[in-house]
Amino acid sequence: MKVGILGYGNLGRGVELAVKGNADVELVAVFTRRNPDSVKILSKDVPVVSVEDVASWREKIDVMILCGGSATDLPAQTPKFAEIFNVVDSFDTHAKIPEHFAKVDAAAKNSNHVAVISVGWDPGLFSLARAYSNAILPNGTDYTFWGRGVSQGHSDAIRRIAGVKNAKQYTVPIDAALDAVRSGANPNLTTREKHLRECYVVLEEGADAAEVERQIKTMPNYFADYDTTVNFISEDEFKKNHSGLAHGGFVIRTGKTSEEHKHVIEFNLKLDSNPEFTANILVAYARAAYRLSQEGKRGCMTVLDIPPAYLSAIDGATLRKNLV
Amino acid sequence: MKVGILGYGNLGRGVELAVKGNADVELVAVFTRRNPDSVKILSKDVPVVSVEDVASWREKIDVMILCGGSATDLPAQTPKFAEIFNVVDSFDTHAKIPEHFAKVDAAAKNSNHVAVISVGWDPGLFSLARAYSNAILPNGTDYTFWGRGVSQGHSDAIRRIAGVKNAKQYTVPIDAALDAVRSGANPNLTTREKHLRECYVVLEEGADAAEVERQIKTMPNYFADYDTTVNFISEDEFKKNHSGLAHGGFVIRTGKTSEEHKHVIEFNLKLDSNPEFTANILVAYARAAYRLSQEGKRGCMTVLDIPPAYLSAIDGATLRKNLV
Repeated sequence: MKVGILGYGNLGRGVELAVKGNADVELVAVFTRRNPDSVKILSKDVPVVSVEDVASWREKIDVMILCGGSATDLPAQTPKFAEIFNVVDSFDTHAKIPEHFAKVDAAAKNSNHVAVISVGWDPGLFSLARAYSNAILPNGTDYTFWGRGVSQGHSDAIRRIAGVKNAKQYTVPIDAALDAVRSGANPNLTTREKHLRECYVVLEEGADAAEVERQIKTMPNYFADYDTTVNFISEDEFKKNHSGLAHGGFVIRTGKTSEEHKHVIEFNLKLDSNPEFTANILVAYARAAYRLSQEGKRGCMTVLDIPPAYLSAIDGATLRKNLV
Repeated sequence: MKVGILGYGNLGRGVELAVKGNADVELVAVFTRRNPDSVKILSKDVPVVSVEDVASWREKIDVMILCGGSATDLPAQTPKFAEIFNVVDSFDTHAKIPEHFAKVDAAAKNSNHVAVISVGWDPGLFSLARAYSNAILPNGTDYTFWGRGVSQGHSDAIRRIAGVKNAKQYTVPIDAALDAVRSGANPNLTTREKHLRECYVVLEEGADAAEVERQIKTMPNYFADYDTTVNFISEDEFKKNHSGLAHGGFVIRTGKTSEEHKHVIEFNLKLDSNPEFTANILVAYARAAYRLSQEGKRGCMTVLDIPPAYLSAIDGATLRKNLV
């Protein structure tokens, strides 16, 4: 299977690494909006091409893996490139998935392509965990916890405060809440009871630490509803201890199958690198998109529409023998 | 969707309860090899019918849920009844799944039916966890732990020892091993390091406790390779504390996406009732079998071949809005 990468940030680089780990997948080109000469990729023998020239690669690429952001890139890019290629994206603005799906579906059907959207871990693997566990325990309750991991949005929000030079925010699930959920007690948890927010901040020379801390802790939506800790650290310590992109989380459903019997279904992830892990999911679903396209399928899908066996490079009989 | 239950033990009764929890599913009959008059079911308005008469229900049942055992019932029943109905079973002899699949596939294709085999949690949900995580982390290692829960096979083995009146064996995963796996250390674990075996035994009057304990602990395959504890208890205590069918387990895959970054994917279950939980999975896959059959699909499948959305009574757009 021949894939292209469109957009070469952390996620695009993760897809490039993921391709190296999947022997049946070949990377044929990386597409960028920047000057291609300025983009240095890991694979020496793969061309970097301007996105302006993407249409001429129509016949050379089985699936285009879209690695832009959900805020502004993907809402435009996925419908546009689904006219030219089979595509997968990691669109993760949950509230806008139905709207994104409709646009991409129209484009993909119109041009006879397969598009798989919202591929990653949330949405993505967490959606799978929710869908399977809801189908199996219809009488139950869902809980999702995120972390311990870096929230890009919250880190950005801190960086916009005057006097802040750099900042990183970790979302931390609270063990007592996780334990209460796992016990099957079916607790009603407030926002504050589920997650802590842990901030590491580098101040500008002469900034007022107390005022920065006040502004963080009282920021509506982002921090006001949480127990938030603010740690002021040096630029050196920031670079040394807070440059990673670790993340993870938990999806738990508890439910009853009779008056007497309750059950707990849990799926959890602990990830050293959010973009590299997401990239590997994208490559697995690119494989599925290619196969579905070869079978004559058309239109937009999510992870809920795709049989698990389609993600694997291993044939059905071997999967049945070794993994079922 | 109209379903039948074939075989009314713990699992069949679990399916009967599960149907009550799924508003789109109707139970039309329970089939038994026993005298139908001797089988008392929970649903007052549902007939209990001799399995001899099953063929006359061909037009009245969308999916037959086969609730026999894997040792002798299902190897014969599933191919036989796949000639008459769409079927789902919980065949769980891992080593014989390819052979069972081939026989059921031939029968189902021959008669234009859908059959879904090996539906449950292992095989079943654990197979899904292994398949997804293997596709996403091709460079990694799988670990499966079972328990804490009742092993029927090991309990039976103890009951065959002279002097034993009743016995229950719990398989217990060892926390230190689970922690080592979750750390991403990729440990090589011996059988003894992964699970304990905890036995509760009621002796016959005058039996030799020390000899029974010796026979249990040295029993090849079942106990000799494990740290085993044997507790002798009264018949009353046995009935009071050891009549449940709780179970559970853990599927963990750890792997790398680059030299520096490792990841842990974990799926785990904690079940108050093994048969009731398995029954709910069977009903969800019966729904999938019915839909696939309506779409013109034919032949045998496992959980790996079925899109997750097919398990749910909720339509695709609503699933996308609420669960993706």
